[in-house]
Amino acid sequence: MVIQYQVAEVKQHIEAVLSKKLKNAKIADPKLNEAMEYSLLLGGKRLRPFLVYATGKLFGASQYDLDASAAAIEAIHSYSLIHDDLPAMDDDALRRGKPTCHVKFDEATAILAGDTLQSFAFSSLTSHSFEAVSAQNQLKLVQVIADAANQMCAGQSIDLQSTDSSLSDLASLENMHRLKTGALISAAVQCGAITGNATEEHLALLVEYANAIGLAFQVWDDVLDITSDTVTLGKPQGSDENANKTTYPALMGLEQTKDKAKALIATAIAALDKLPYDTDELAQLAQYIIERDH
Amino acid sequence: MVIQYQVAEVKQHIEAVLSKKLKNAKIADPKLNEAMEYSLLLGGKRLRPFLVYATGKLFGASQYDLDASAAAIEAIHSYSLIHDDLPAMDDDALRRGKPTCHVKFDEATAILAGDTLQSFAFSSLTSHSFEAVSAQNQLKLVQVIADAANQMCAGQSIDLQSTDSSLSDLASLENMHRLKTGALISAAVQCGAITGNATEEHLALLVEYANAIGLAFQVWDDVLDITSDTVTLGKPQGSDENANKTTYPALMGLEQTKDKAKALIATAIAALDKLPYDTDELAQLAQYIIERDH
Repeated sequence: MVIQYQVAEVKQHIEAVLSKKLKNAKIADPKLNEAMEYSLLLGGKRLRPFLVYATGKLFGASQYDLDASAAAIEAIHSYSLIHDDLPAMDDDALRRGKPTCHVKFDEATAILAGDTLQSFAFSSLTSHSFEAVSAQNQLKLVQVIADAANQMCAGQSIDLQSTDSSLSDLASLENMHRLKTGALISAAVQCGAITGNATEEHLALLVEYANAIGLAFQVWDDVLDITSDTVTLGKPQGSDENANKTTYPALMGLEQTKDKAKALIATAIAALDKLPYDTDELAQLAQYIIERDH
Repeated sequence: MVIQYQVAEVKQHIEAVLSKKLKNAKIADPKLNEAMEYSLLLGGKRLRPFLVYATGKLFGASQYDLDASAAAIEAIHSYSLIHDDLPAMDDDALRRGKPTCHVKFDEATAILAGDTLQSFAFSSLTSHSFEAVSAQNQLKLVQVIADAANQMCAGQSIDLQSTDSSLSDLASLENMHRLKTGALISAAVQCGAITGNATEEHLALLVEYANAIGLAFQVWDDVLDITSDTVTLGKPQGSDENANKTTYPALMGLEQTKDKAKALIATAIAALDKLPYDTDELAQLAQYIIERDH
């Protein structure tokens, strides 16, 4: 499947961009810089940067201009993973098969590395020398990312409170996922569109696409937590069940959960079909989300 | 002394602004919102907002336009206090005489409240409807604040590592303070100047002023940690010594430390004297820094 090569290509590119931008930020403490770099370059599918580039290209945005928000969003994502893994949060020792930041370094350094990756997101974005993005649109990029970061934390807060009870209905579970991961995935698509100066109408269709794939991603993660194994996942299989987290399979059964993921992808593709552009790459990515095994 | 009334006036104003901006941000989890509000409105001198307003007024900036960066900078300061107080960091149970965020709520909520106050800083700044600040200058505000936030974390990281050894010379101690607290104080002055569209030359003089008072503030804090008492300070007296932190009095003695603070204030005022404006308020604030007892 060709999309996996494109995902791999973007992954390689954004990791080089992140590495360069972190170097340029001249973080004034070597230990902190090392912890930031460790987590930022720990790997991952780089789905959010992929969405920035794939969306921005529809509107003729340059790769260089798209680098700015792709890097900023990935830095926000990376900070959130570091903090989510902390002992006071999900208390995870493994991330992508490697020690989490607080295990590799220490808890204080992990807190600070996450904090600094967040400010780095905004400092690197605003120090980018854009080629063809107005100052007004650059401000919109900051705003979209900052708003998504607010929502992401609210989602994590709701998720943490849910471990003991609540989230017992689909609407609450969906609300949590939309905040915790959906908002940043939507921000990625919005940033691509804003960088390419898209119309409000096209932006709205892309947000529809993003909301659907963002939720599908989480729904599919719940499926993988049951059907995959620890080595493939890079984290302990069954960890959601063990943490007593509410999941889609727990609420609606495994088969119906798979159907729900497929229906969301169909919704996403229907939104793309209304756009007068070649949205094949975004459509393929949507399919990939419910075909991946980790 | 009249400056204390002005400081109190700004304090009242910025707390109303922060409260309103937090409400407008519509944080999607009530518990998270409550923790953010608790820490954001816990009090404090609001020195950084004061600097934004006092500087901006020199250049004719409106109070409303200055609200944006004053609130953003105070949100960053507030986030840093929450995280600095965490068990993995300074492990403080009291802040301004009240329970710290992780004591009042829980550790996970405190981490998230800090994280969200940082993104709130940037979301509230970019959603502000400025009256007379260009998009280019609005971007500069974001950049200055984000850069300062990066430096602040590097300073905290160096400070944490120093507890066991290092920072045994004045240059290293000063570097740490410049990063940890000086950068954000300098950012406050810069934001005031940028909002007022100040020239580069005037900005440079104000940065000189800010660097001097920022350091003087820390030097004087070291003095107060020895000479003041727990009730006046709102935190345990002697906590630096107990935490085995390097301080100015430890390196150069109490009297010489007081002299150093005075010399820094003289430097700050000399920089102000080169500006063709009525800088009396900023000069009085500088004096106030080394006259305060908490």
